[in-house]
Amino acid sequence: MNEEISARTVMERCDILGGFSEEPDCLTRPFASQAMRRVNEAVTAWMHDAGMTVQQDAVGNLIGRYEAFSAGAKTLLLGSHLDSVRNAGKYDGPLGVMIALACVERLHQRQERLPFAIEVLGFADEEGLRYQSAYLGSRAMTGTFDVDALQLTDADGIPMAEAIRAFGGNPDPRILRTPRWQSGDLLGYCEVHIEQGPVLEARGLPLGVVSAIAGMNRISVQFTGEAGHAGTVPMELRHDALFAAAEFVQAVETIGRSIEGLVATVGQLSVRPGASNVIPAEVTLSLDVRHQDDSVRKEASRHLEARAREAGQARGVTCKWQLLQEHAAVSCSPRMVQLLGRAIEESGYPLLSLPSGAGHDAAILSELTATGMLFVRCRGGISHNPAESVMVEDVAAAIKATERFLSLLAQEGEQ
Amino acid sequence: MNEEISARTVMERCDILGGFSEEPDCLTRPFASQAMRRVNEAVTAWMHDAGMTVQQDAVGNLIGRYEAFSAGAKTLLLGSHLDSVRNAGKYDGPLGVMIALACVERLHQRQERLPFAIEVLGFADEEGLRYQSAYLGSRAMTGTFDVDALQLTDADGIPMAEAIRAFGGNPDPRILRTPRWQSGDLLGYCEVHIEQGPVLEARGLPLGVVSAIAGMNRISVQFTGEAGHAGTVPMELRHDALFAAAEFVQAVETIGRSIEGLVATVGQLSVRPGASNVIPAEVTLSLDVRHQDDSVRKEASRHLEARAREAGQARGVTCKWQLLQEHAAVSCSPRMVQLLGRAIEESGYPLLSLPSGAGHDAAILSELTATGMLFVRCRGGISHNPAESVMVEDVAAAIKATERFLSLLAQEGEQ
Repeated sequence: MNEEISARTVMERCDILGGFSEEPDCLTRPFASQAMRRVNEAVTAWMHDAGMTVQQDAVGNLIGRYEAFSAGAKTLLLGSHLDSVRNAGKYDGPLGVMIALACVERLHQRQERLPFAIEVLGFADEEGLRYQSAYLGSRAMTGTFDVDALQLTDADGIPMAEAIRAFGGNPDPRILRTPRWQSGDLLGYCEVHIEQGPVLEARGLPLGVVSAIAGMNRISVQFTGEAGHAGTVPMELRHDALFAAAEFVQAVETIGRSIEGLVATVGQLSVRPGASNVIPAEVTLSLDVRHQDDSVRKEASRHLEARAREAGQARGVTCKWQLLQEHAAVSCSPRMVQLLGRAIEESGYPLLSLPSGAGHDAAILSELTATGMLFVRCRGGISHNPAESVMVEDVAAAIKATERFLSLLAQEGEQ
Repeated sequence: MNEEISARTVMERCDILGGFSEEPDCLTRPFASQAMRRVNEAVTAWMHDAGMTVQQDAVGNLIGRYEAFSAGAKTLLLGSHLDSVRNAGKYDGPLGVMIALACVERLHQRQERLPFAIEVLGFADEEGLRYQSAYLGSRAMTGTFDVDALQLTDADGIPMAEAIRAFGGNPDPRILRTPRWQSGDLLGYCEVHIEQGPVLEARGLPLGVVSAIAGMNRISVQFTGEAGHAGTVPMELRHDALFAAAEFVQAVETIGRSIEGLVATVGQLSVRPGASNVIPAEVTLSLDVRHQDDSVRKEASRHLEARAREAGQARGVTCKWQLLQEHAAVSCSPRMVQLLGRAIEESGYPLLSLPSGAGHDAAILSELTATGMLFVRCRGGISHNPAESVMVEDVAAAIKATERFLSLLAQEGEQ
């Protein structure tokens, strides 16, 4: 069967899963919801049809297992997440699970077994929509679950432990802190995901290999000056917090553009008191800085902090710099990167390696095993939005490359 | 009686008037309110004591008249407004009325008449708090009242015409469109007002003569780019509306500082969608530009518009520029400026001439007669705020200078 036909099945299945939502007019699928139950039911049926045994674990992750041709073989993990953000697109998460499933289905149709078992994982929570606590699924699978999070309550006041129980799971901390596998039993983890960015589209490429998942910090910057009448305070006597903030935002752009691979964003900015005829007394803004090399990111952040303080000092405006969040970068396994790269080239596509600016389950799995990621081009780089869109040809390319990757891995094992 | 004693009376009266408010914990005195009624009652009593005849006109302006030593003489107008903004200070408006009243009171105590009559005006509305329509008082007095405004309703749904009637006035459009005086019967209008800015304080001066009331325009600028994931869209592929806006705000500061007497303010700025991990798609900001020379202001605004468009174009961001409001500058009468300047110098104070960045009743009166303004230093330039503060010595200086001004005007008439 050619990959185009499988790709169309993948697209249809993403459509079907996109219909399982907690909201009538858009796709919103939180952890341990009714919509997740229906998704797991649908995917379970498809997994059975693909010759897999299926189970749902203690937090609601779905695991379809396709055995190796011999007992005692190692296991390769494939997959992604099945939950979504609010008002989501259909492909962020499910596409990776459906492509993994399609690859196993094609093996099954050919009655082919590999020298390793494959487990297709559908993670129960990556987005953190319901409990503002991302990666619940992959954390439980790798035994790194934060058991304090069990006390968290959702918007309706339902504690996480209760939600897990209601979903048919088991919120026993000992289970959630035990990895599903011993590291030595695994070959690695490979995740296919939409890029969620515009790089592949801009380069005209269907696929890319992820080199690393960028580290990030989120910073709150507050400039405090002095309010005053817009008509009566001469420019040289002002302590305008927005003038300081504007110089800083300009520095964010300049520094962001001057360092290869750095992304720096001021996504929130508010002005107080916020009247057209009053000089701004206070500006609070958010700064998000990411890079695949932590030392580059940290150096850029230090530089930006200095520029913020300078922008304030030049205007008699104080500057408060507060680090809210920091995640280190996660490098993909060089072996996985190399195999996925070969698989792409041998499938007839040019090779591009790129970092992931967004976080993924792969970052969590990397604590346990060698991980790799394959990015699929998406239209306009749009994600976390109903307009999320991928082309069936690109899905076919991803199936082709993943199959090639499985072959390469199988050959390697034989050598 | 020395000016210090009169100045203390002025301060006490400002305290008393500051207690007449529609809100229990702060000073809020809208047009035609109960608080205004009590203010007009108190001021009426003080005017009677100062030898004046008193009347309240069709919109609630208070007019105290002190006759000249001979019938048929011209009239000099003095005064300011008695209404306030929300959560106001005690001096913005009432100080000018109380100083005018004190000067007449001192004439009366000396049983002195001048070769011209004096009318002390307490305008019923300058701030426009109740109907978002400023200068109702001076517009009615000069016969330039916008009669369509009578249909406006306040926050409680009360139409202006009804509020005027309830206050004992008469919302007859013919009355409101008839000037109280013929231009030829007037000598001019002089208003004492707190500076509402920090210039006099910075120069260590109690008083200043206003050269002109600055013209202003208020502009809305909207930058529209493209949202995207803060982690996944490389800097060079972004259309970040905030980066464009920041370059523009920097230009506002640079151009504002480079042109003598220009003030330029971005007081409002909002970012959409406004999430820390999303590239700004849209920024809307306000621009307030003022200068005493309209051609300078207009040239600066054109320059800023060009800079806004450039900042957008450089980033693939569109820019919408919308003029919301424009007022031409009003020059004070050269004769009034000269007389007030002499009065200040002959009272023993250094002379500083400065423009007013804020609007005043004097701008409206200038359509009818020669106007002049005297600014009194206020602490920190703070106004429209309970922290508004003036020193009793500076009030004494203003009384001294106003009295000197009256003498100079009387001498002029005799020549």
